[in-house]
Amino acid sequence: MTSEFDIISQYFSWNHKANSIHTAVGDDGAILIPPVGKQLVVTTDTLISDVHFPDNTPADAIAHKALAVNLSDLAAMGAEPEWFTLALTLPNTDPQWLEAFSQSLKKIASQYSIALIGGDTTSGSTLSITITAMGFAEPHHLLLRSTAQSGDLIYVSGLLGDAAAGLAMVQQRFSGQDNQHCIEQLNKPTPQLTIAHHLRGIASSCIDVSDGFLADLNHILKASQLGARIHLDQIPLSSTLQNIDHQEALNYALSGGDDYQLLFTIPQKHHANFKKICQQQDLLCYCVGQIDHSINGMITSQGKILNAKGFNHFLG
Amino acid sequence: MTSEFDIISQYFSWNHKANSIHTAVGDDGAILIPPVGKQLVVTTDTLISDVHFPDNTPADAIAHKALAVNLSDLAAMGAEPEWFTLALTLPNTDPQWLEAFSQSLKKIASQYSIALIGGDTTSGSTLSITITAMGFAEPHHLLLRSTAQSGDLIYVSGLLGDAAAGLAMVQQRFSGQDNQHCIEQLNKPTPQLTIAHHLRGIASSCIDVSDGFLADLNHILKASQLGARIHLDQIPLSSTLQNIDHQEALNYALSGGDDYQLLFTIPQKHHANFKKICQQQDLLCYCVGQIDHSINGMITSQGKILNAKGFNHFLG
Repeated sequence: MTSEFDIISQYFSWNHKANSIHTAVGDDGAILIPPVGKQLVVTTDTLISDVHFPDNTPADAIAHKALAVNLSDLAAMGAEPEWFTLALTLPNTDPQWLEAFSQSLKKIASQYSIALIGGDTTSGSTLSITITAMGFAEPHHLLLRSTAQSGDLIYVSGLLGDAAAGLAMVQQRFSGQDNQHCIEQLNKPTPQLTIAHHLRGIASSCIDVSDGFLADLNHILKASQLGARIHLDQIPLSSTLQNIDHQEALNYALSGGDDYQLLFTIPQKHHANFKKICQQQDLLCYCVGQIDHSINGMITSQGKILNAKGFNHFLG
Repeated sequence: MTSEFDIISQYFSWNHKANSIHTAVGDDGAILIPPVGKQLVVTTDTLISDVHFPDNTPADAIAHKALAVNLSDLAAMGAEPEWFTLALTLPNTDPQWLEAFSQSLKKIASQYSIALIGGDTTSGSTLSITITAMGFAEPHHLLLRSTAQSGDLIYVSGLLGDAAAGLAMVQQRFSGQDNQHCIEQLNKPTPQLTIAHHLRGIASSCIDVSDGFLADLNHILKASQLGARIHLDQIPLSSTLQNIDHQEALNYALSGGDDYQLLFTIPQKHHANFKKICQQQDLLCYCVGQIDHSINGMITSQGKILNAKGFNHFLG
């Protein structure tokens, strides 16, 4: 079997960003130069075969998604990506698989200007990828979960539910009009770093939709000790989801998970400015509700109680 | 099954160090305040059940070792530990196991002043722990692999081979005089941060012995483009290893791996000062050879060629 050192030097010794890096791969640790006056944001996500993605997922999609979900967390914090480490556990060393995986990882890393600075490659029975991503933000640009205010408008950065529908398609539980689009959303989510950039100084709170819209909104509400009213008719659905049973479509959109859109709150005083930015920058964001201190939890515009059941990797 | 959020809040929401932490667990990422003027050192190590430790290893040993091997990398770089993230993949959620694991992790984290700042808990068929540890060093205090010089003396920070003998004992391939000591070395290695502290400004290169003495010395030699002469009779062995067949003992000590001692080089101009520090600070370090530019690879004092075959997780 190919050795750990050979795998690292053959597939993971590329780099594209040097200013903040003294030494990357090749010593006991990477030596990095943090920018002065900024705060460091660190996030970790693990993807495991058959838990977080179906085991027939292509190598390029796995690599893309493993980094994208971490970039999505940096976006949700308002941080600019800088470095990441990769811990890769492989059941075998298939050169074709490693080539596709490393090329795809390099592509998304380069696209979002994040440098691979180290990691660990191990042999194990189940394919598992843990990425720790690091980014930087000016202290006043950070986006937290705990700082929503009553009256703020609740926004999402794009369509919801397509990834969950894509998973149902891959698992042959459901077939829609545009399977390819939904499976692409599942396999290669887009981290919303561009939108995050424009939310700085404007949004009052932010999270990324990984567990599902309701579960993630509930994280903001709990952290901010507030409630919310949701306009179900404003939940943005793709044409694929608009063409299926509405209850099923809403279920994918509200509880499906894996969307990696941003879910954020805009204070009313910034609303006009935010709408102007969206227009100028061609950002498609959707207002889906409002924070309300007089509500306990989440209700619909018609007063129906919603609960936070989102996708939970230990329950689902 | 207990949810991911419950596991984090019940077992991993302790903390002991606040100055450099704005927000730890509870948002999409941790927000951290890097000290001014220092360089950040980042290292990642994964431990997988039945690959890096026997599957009957107690929970407290697994937690200790998972953090200790990362702390050992920080020590080898000359960095002071600051933060770590924990990615934990569990085949089931046994409260007793989680309690023992988290208490042991908390204990070693507190002992070496490193704060848990986030992570990910997932369900998977194989127990796997990936820790990314971060530390800081003054730029001129960093210890690299690539900076050894011809003439430098080669040192190790303690006895070699006991962990490998411990593994043989656990696997019932070997029984010695003091099994408990060797198994303790295997399960609960001591990261050599105290010695690392005293090597700053004195050692010319450093690595930790994880793959095995010869394999790790070879990393220094390759990075520094030099060779070395090893005095096999100076390799420090415990009384357990002194009492077995000498060739077998040397094999554990030279190629066994998992020692987590530091292997470093001392320029002759600092040698007297280094010996004085060892005496003053009660540090037991052993001189086992010398760097020599005229040697290609590694040879013994008698001129016998040594090769770098150490423990390799993809071969062993």
